[in-house]
Amino acid sequence: MKFDFEFYNPTKIFFGRNAMDNLENQLENYGKNILFVYGKASIKKIGLYERVINALKSTGKTVTELSGIKPNPTYTQVLEGARLVRENSIDLILAVGGGSVIDCAKAISVSAFCEGDPWQKYWVDFEPLGNKTVPVGAILTMAGTASEMNAGSVITNEAVMIKEGRVFTPEVNPEFSILNPEYTYTVPKIQMVSGVFDVMSHLLEQYFSGEDDNTTDYIIEGILKSLIHSTRIALENPTDYEARSNIMWCATMALNKITGLSKEQDWLVHGIEHQIGAYTDCPHGVGLAIVSVPYYKHIYKYGLDKFVRFAVNIWNVAAVGLTKEQAALAGIEKMADFIKEMGIPTTLREIGATEDTLEKIAGSIEPGGGYKYVTNAEILEILRECY
Amino acid sequence: MKFDFEFYNPTKIFFGRNAMDNLENQLENYGKNILFVYGKASIKKIGLYERVINALKSTGKTVTELSGIKPNPTYTQVLEGARLVRENSIDLILAVGGGSVIDCAKAISVSAFCEGDPWQKYWVDFEPLGNKTVPVGAILTMAGTASEMNAGSVITNEAVMIKEGRVFTPEVNPEFSILNPEYTYTVPKIQMVSGVFDVMSHLLEQYFSGEDDNTTDYIIEGILKSLIHSTRIALENPTDYEARSNIMWCATMALNKITGLSKEQDWLVHGIEHQIGAYTDCPHGVGLAIVSVPYYKHIYKYGLDKFVRFAVNIWNVAAVGLTKEQAALAGIEKMADFIKEMGIPTTLREIGATEDTLEKIAGSIEPGGGYKYVTNAEILEILRECY
Repeated sequence: MKFDFEFYNPTKIFFGRNAMDNLENQLENYGKNILFVYGKASIKKIGLYERVINALKSTGKTVTELSGIKPNPTYTQVLEGARLVRENSIDLILAVGGGSVIDCAKAISVSAFCEGDPWQKYWVDFEPLGNKTVPVGAILTMAGTASEMNAGSVITNEAVMIKEGRVFTPEVNPEFSILNPEYTYTVPKIQMVSGVFDVMSHLLEQYFSGEDDNTTDYIIEGILKSLIHSTRIALENPTDYEARSNIMWCATMALNKITGLSKEQDWLVHGIEHQIGAYTDCPHGVGLAIVSVPYYKHIYKYGLDKFVRFAVNIWNVAAVGLTKEQAALAGIEKMADFIKEMGIPTTLREIGATEDTLEKIAGSIEPGGGYKYVTNAEILEILRECY
Repeated sequence: MKFDFEFYNPTKIFFGRNAMDNLENQLENYGKNILFVYGKASIKKIGLYERVINALKSTGKTVTELSGIKPNPTYTQVLEGARLVRENSIDLILAVGGGSVIDCAKAISVSAFCEGDPWQKYWVDFEPLGNKTVPVGAILTMAGTASEMNAGSVITNEAVMIKEGRVFTPEVNPEFSILNPEYTYTVPKIQMVSGVFDVMSHLLEQYFSGEDDNTTDYIIEGILKSLIHSTRIALENPTDYEARSNIMWCATMALNKITGLSKEQDWLVHGIEHQIGAYTDCPHGVGLAIVSVPYYKHIYKYGLDKFVRFAVNIWNVAAVGLTKEQAALAGIEKMADFIKEMGIPTTLREIGATEDTLEKIAGSIEPGGGYKYVTNAEILEILRECY
């Protein structure tokens, strides 16, 4: 743990089959005006909409609804939510859905009382939070983003075609999050595996940085192994409770700050995907999976020992008799195999990107990286390799 | 994650070489009356006493000191601290030292305004916390107990010769904890390795329970591997910053609830050691190490698969050609070798226990266990095996 760090994560987690039993108790902690934010009909299909409405009624709340939050939540929706918060003196924003809904709720929370344009202030200029916020509570229906236990909020501004993530201070974390793995049973397979690769990418983007000897890397390896193990079980049997519950907890642990402590981190894969998402609206984890293979092949030589460790510890590559390069590449190939095993598309073409957009996408990305500084020209190369 | 759980850990962690730079800022959050609790002269030797006093002065605090907290903090000291809190209208209890000092500070916090006898109420009858508490802040000088990030408090009542641990609700957690690994450089070797085995035991007492497939077990394995790896480096070079910092963070992570989530847990090794500690005043981790080898040999057949996994994943036992029993035992032997490698005594005799006390110790322990229910007669057998 070479680098100094601070850690503070005040989200209360209620996890398990009976986690929803805590909803009424949590609601009692807030005033009566609730903004109930959700996506589409899926929460109605599994009876969750009704369960939430009943809890809100039985605790005497006045409910304002904001529905139709998109998989890549838009700035327009954020501004609409912010208006609703002000007009209805909202005491709690209750987000029910996946990471997009929770991200949107946090964006509404910081935007409602922001003077000036919140997009410019918080997602472009990255100014420190300078206004009051509204508490957020979450009921999670999909495993992936860890938005349920962090202060991150990824928003797409359609007007400028930019999808940008911002991590706020912990006061923006959901104050409570209810995680029932059973709610993820009915998530369509492509969404499930997209979530799994989002989790894997969070872990890898923290893992593949630094050459220090760090407890955090060992913790990441543990979570990665559990994730891979349980995903294989869930692919066979989507209603295997233990598998789905492990995936759900791996997701939360992968981005609640613990797996980033004292790590330099390299978030360029997410940076690239955000722009693919802005242009194609593909599931986030699918975009990450498509980019990761060529990205890591592009940089592995610059962090060779760590890629060998990844191959051996995570994918059981027998390194004896291989050069370091061969062992490292074998690890990346095993990851590519796992992506195929999950049935995730492996090319941008399959998710609707057109060749003429590749330059626009590459040009709209802030270059950067970890083991290697990757320029816009190199990003374009990477995009072409997975087109 | 088969069993439902709640997770909430509100401690703010400041970690690293410059962690103390946050002290003044944290002190600003509290009123002016501070109870400064510490152990012996060691914090003076490393200049920490002066650093803390200067911070308290510069932030305008009125300081009451309570020093001489023992390695196994006594109930008498807790009552003395509670009296000081009441008489001086204390706003913050600042604990500076190892786990004993922080445990004592928490016990003072819950006892100061307790009606009736706190020992009886909280450490014997395990009543829920029913009175106001005083905030605790911590500056850690020794890695081991994780008291810096949990609500546990182990106290020895000398009058009845009972050492008992109590885990309170998270409101008893230190509100902030400052962890500078450099402070652990001067910890005597026997205290360092005692701390390391305390950490290992925390991990194992959570790991060796249940046969479910649980993300938590993978995380525990990661922390165990990092702990073993960094301990070997720190044994060679006690001022290796990365090694000491990893050990310190492994310690915190090993008992901040994360490594116990959805685990049944088996705390009998701690239960046995607490009574050895009450009779011998030996370093806590030394007592744990002495007991662990015969304890796990006594129960391994009842959780055989998990002990094989431990042997293979943690100690790289080549299980091919071995029976499960052989592989499991080989793992326990590797752990015993590691205890010897650290220079930890392996018999109760060496730490001053006399043969005639073994029955008294065994008889004073609440029987229990995980994979196997262990009776008082069996505990006596285990004690004799390591006498």
